Amino acid sequence: MAPDDTHLIEHRTGGQTLLSGGFLEVRRDTVRLPDGSSATREYIQHPGAVAVVPILDDGRLVMVRQYRYPIAKVLLEFPAGKRDPGETTLACAMRELAEETGYTAREWAYGGRIHNAAAYTTESIWIWFARGLVAGAKRPDVGEFVETVLLDEASLEALDVADDLPDVKTVIGLRWLQMGLDGRRPLGWRSAEEAREPVMAAP
Amino acid sequence: MAPDDTHLIEHRTGGQTLLSGGFLEVRRDTVRLPDGSSATREYIQHPGAVAVVPILDDGRLVMVRQYRYPIAKVLLEFPAGKRDPGETTLACAMRELAEETGYTAREWAYGGRIHNAAAYTTESIWIWFARGLVAGAKRPDVGEFVETVLLDEASLEALDVADDLPDVKTVIGLRWLQMGLDGRRPLGWRSAEEAREPVMAAP
Repeated sequence: MAPDDTHLIEHRTGGQTLLSGGFLEVRRDTVRLPDGSSATREYIQHPGAVAVVPILDDGRLVMVRQYRYPIAKVLLEFPAGKRDPGETTLACAMRELAEETGYTAREWAYGGRIHNAAAYTTESIWIWFARGLVAGAKRPDVGEFVETVLLDEASLEALDVADDLPDVKTVIGLRWLQMGLDGRRPLGWRSAEEAREPVMAAP
Repeated sequence: MAPDDTHLIEHRTGGQTLLSGGFLEVRRDTVRLPDGSSATREYIQHPGAVAVVPILDDGRLVMVRQYRYPIAKVLLEFPAGKRDPGETTLACAMRELAEETGYTAREWAYGGRIHNAAAYTTESIWIWFARGLVAGAKRPDVGEFVETVLLDEASLEALDVADDLPDVKTVIGLRWLQMGLDGRRPLGWRSAEEAREPVMAAP
């Protein structure tokens, strides 16, 4: 999977910011295509996000229901949010879990990294797993209305089978959870303290 | 999963187009939050996209490798693309499969619908499965450089296990393929002609 990709790669030749200062930052770059011709690429500059699969001692998962205005639907999702500047993905995971659900976790395992719209955003979503959960008070952002729900893995799978679990980070978190449980994709659990060490907290 | 969600739902009170005419269309709406306060929501207006999981008679999958400029990586993906105006998701699936890989398919099965960035895009991705594949000539869009690769399901799973399959529609297509094979999420195969009937071609 590491061939010579010069026949595919595009090179930046210039660019400008089209939109900035609000919620979305949009850029338009000019690029040189593999055949030497030119094209433009418009995309969202995104700081990256983190999602957390929080597993209670009884196996249920701590999830959130949230209205997603662009699609006009309430989605069932694993807790998630954007990285703050300079924040490691683990620090972001700990913060978002606490803010959205109130839970803190004694143990953490890194799941993996996904790209959710590589055609037009720089966003990565890093997925972390959390267990040894301790309940606390939620601290949602101003203007954020989030409901906590507890669901077991079988119920979540039933929603996926019914085509009623459309959020991508949530489907993939469920997949990796199940692959961890059946041994196909083992999770490396560490205490919160160990996980915070730089070598683990990266990326 | 259908409770009263008035405590979560946001209502549009106004809006404007921030960016239009290029590749991305960006809108900013004002909304009334569940507590009566106001907020703004910026998002990409997207026509929706389709991904295809094309299964050869020997079980290998027809995939594409493509440079994704915003993340500066070549991604391994199932063939996919944006819907043209008025196009059904099945017609889009047939078109994108033929354009990007040259293959046509005798049978089709609808997989499901995902939302890949519901915080800031209206995009849905509908996933279709295709089999009874017949090879033909690729017809990539101008400025599109796409390489076709054939991989079996075990190799794809190995990439996912190694955290080297980051494209979300591809991971979820693989999940649904495997759940179809093991009976957890059966696929309803139909001939291309039957599948084209309006009731099936929808959404």
